[in-house]
Amino acid sequence: MAAAAHEPEVIRDKAVMRAWSRCRRAEGKAVALVPTMGFLHDGHLSLVSAAVAAAAGPVAVVVSIYVNPSQFAPTEDLATYPSDFAGDLRKLAATGAVAAVFCPPDLYVRGRAGHPAAGASGGAVSCLEDAGGHAHETWIRVEQLEKGLCGSSRPVFFRGVATVVSKLFNIVEPDIAVFGKKDYQQWRVICRMVRDLDFAIEIVGTEIVREADGLAMSSRNVHLSCEEREKALSISRSLMNARTAVLNGNNHGQQLKDEIVQTLKEAGGQVDYVEFQSLTFSLD
Amino acid sequence: MAAAAHEPEVIRDKAVMRAWSRCRRAEGKAVALVPTMGFLHDGHLSLVSAAVAAAAGPVAVVVSIYVNPSQFAPTEDLATYPSDFAGDLRKLAATGAVAAVFCPPDLYVRGRAGHPAAGASGGAVSCLEDAGGHAHETWIRVEQLEKGLCGSSRPVFFRGVATVVSKLFNIVEPDIAVFGKKDYQQWRVICRMVRDLDFAIEIVGTEIVREADGLAMSSRNVHLSCEEREKALSISRSLMNARTAVLNGNNHGQQLKDEIVQTLKEAGGQVDYVEFQSLTFSLD
Repeated sequence: MAAAAHEPEVIRDKAVMRAWSRCRRAEGKAVALVPTMGFLHDGHLSLVSAAVAAAAGPVAVVVSIYVNPSQFAPTEDLATYPSDFAGDLRKLAATGAVAAVFCPPDLYVRGRAGHPAAGASGGAVSCLEDAGGHAHETWIRVEQLEKGLCGSSRPVFFRGVATVVSKLFNIVEPDIAVFGKKDYQQWRVICRMVRDLDFAIEIVGTEIVREADGLAMSSRNVHLSCEEREKALSISRSLMNARTAVLNGNNHGQQLKDEIVQTLKEAGGQVDYVEFQSLTFSLD
Repeated sequence: MAAAAHEPEVIRDKAVMRAWSRCRRAEGKAVALVPTMGFLHDGHLSLVSAAVAAAAGPVAVVVSIYVNPSQFAPTEDLATYPSDFAGDLRKLAATGAVAAVFCPPDLYVRGRAGHPAAGASGGAVSCLEDAGGHAHETWIRVEQLEKGLCGSSRPVFFRGVATVVSKLFNIVEPDIAVFGKKDYQQWRVICRMVRDLDFAIEIVGTEIVREADGLAMSSRNVHLSCEEREKALSISRSLMNARTAVLNGNNHGQQLKDEIVQTLKEAGGQVDYVEFQSLTFSLD
């Protein structure tokens, strides 16, 4: 039986991916890339819709699925990151809008096992180097925007994201790439990298997609127990409360932050940081 | 009077450059990039020949001329780097092989004057940040190969080279790029970056071009007085002597290095380093 017309083509090889992309361009289509780590939810599917909407004319949408080891620290959850490739393919096919799925087995040149891993700039090491041996040694850093916020507790994260996204850009050669603003610092890092390195790519940012009860959709939510999931609502609830307060004229930034921290802690949360983007300066 | 057919097109704008390059590709030509900092000599012209030779079919050769501030430390010679744009254009036209010259006025987003420059990774600062204000903040580092050799005395050099070459790659989108092996560590850094970041570009390396008396051609040679130029021959002479000794079976690596250092010092030279690439391990 022939595959349905909207069944995405599955591509595993870098060179095949690039050739496929160049063919689409030669046909007069824009190529739009949606980079993901798989285990797709409606947030990801909104990225696909945004890719279609962003193109002025015919577009070929490529969704990449790759769990990037270099953005995980060895203490983080690379080993338990959820995956469901068959389910992902079904969801993407159902959109009718995805032309290809790029799912490379690996994207890095690996070194010899047992070869000592060199520390990244700043001494941090990711799961890539930690896997024993390193050969990949080129890293892209967005030196100001990677600092602070999530960068404080995740020292290799933005280096790994900027580097793998740059690799995906060079392999897929898209005209458009779509990222969710849920990962807001990441979105800013990508935009800055594209500007600074002159990538010929339009970066589209999409708004957070939430569950009916307010929880931001995330692949990692699958790890939450019922009780933890309930407690996690303290995040959206406290942020919404702060938003309402600001809209009602409350301009006590520090007080609002303190209230968020208190709500999170009462729910049993360990708080990495609470920060208002750009409002920090006008509210305090 | 119409320009001769071999007169290169002069392009100053990034977007025009990229569009030009895509037109050549659409015509079925390969695009070959020869990045330079201008003040061209026969070494540069050999890069142009290598670009033509490397292409399997029709090729459009682009020579970029841009003195990149981010690879100079504030203590180095950015301000006095020689230039002769009219002369460069004449030489390139005379080859009959150059389709376009890309000479952007600037390649970096600049910050506000007086804004304090943030130190690069490792605390080093280049002429880009030193110019007062910084906005560009994305840097590519090839973390192993940039260490040692020239990297020891020029802490921002390879970071600046990798970053600007990556920008040129994203603007010109070449199929081929040509670099001289005179700057051997730079050549290795570029090759590694292209491999690690999946640039779809074939990197071609060319051998050193020397003056009749053995001096390696370099734009900076114009700064040498007659006396200094004579002394500079100690570099090629001592290297050639060591090469002859190795070919004759001398395997005393340290002794050979010491002899080179001695020759250089006798000529009044200050020695940054003397090293044998790869032979270091087998000879000592």
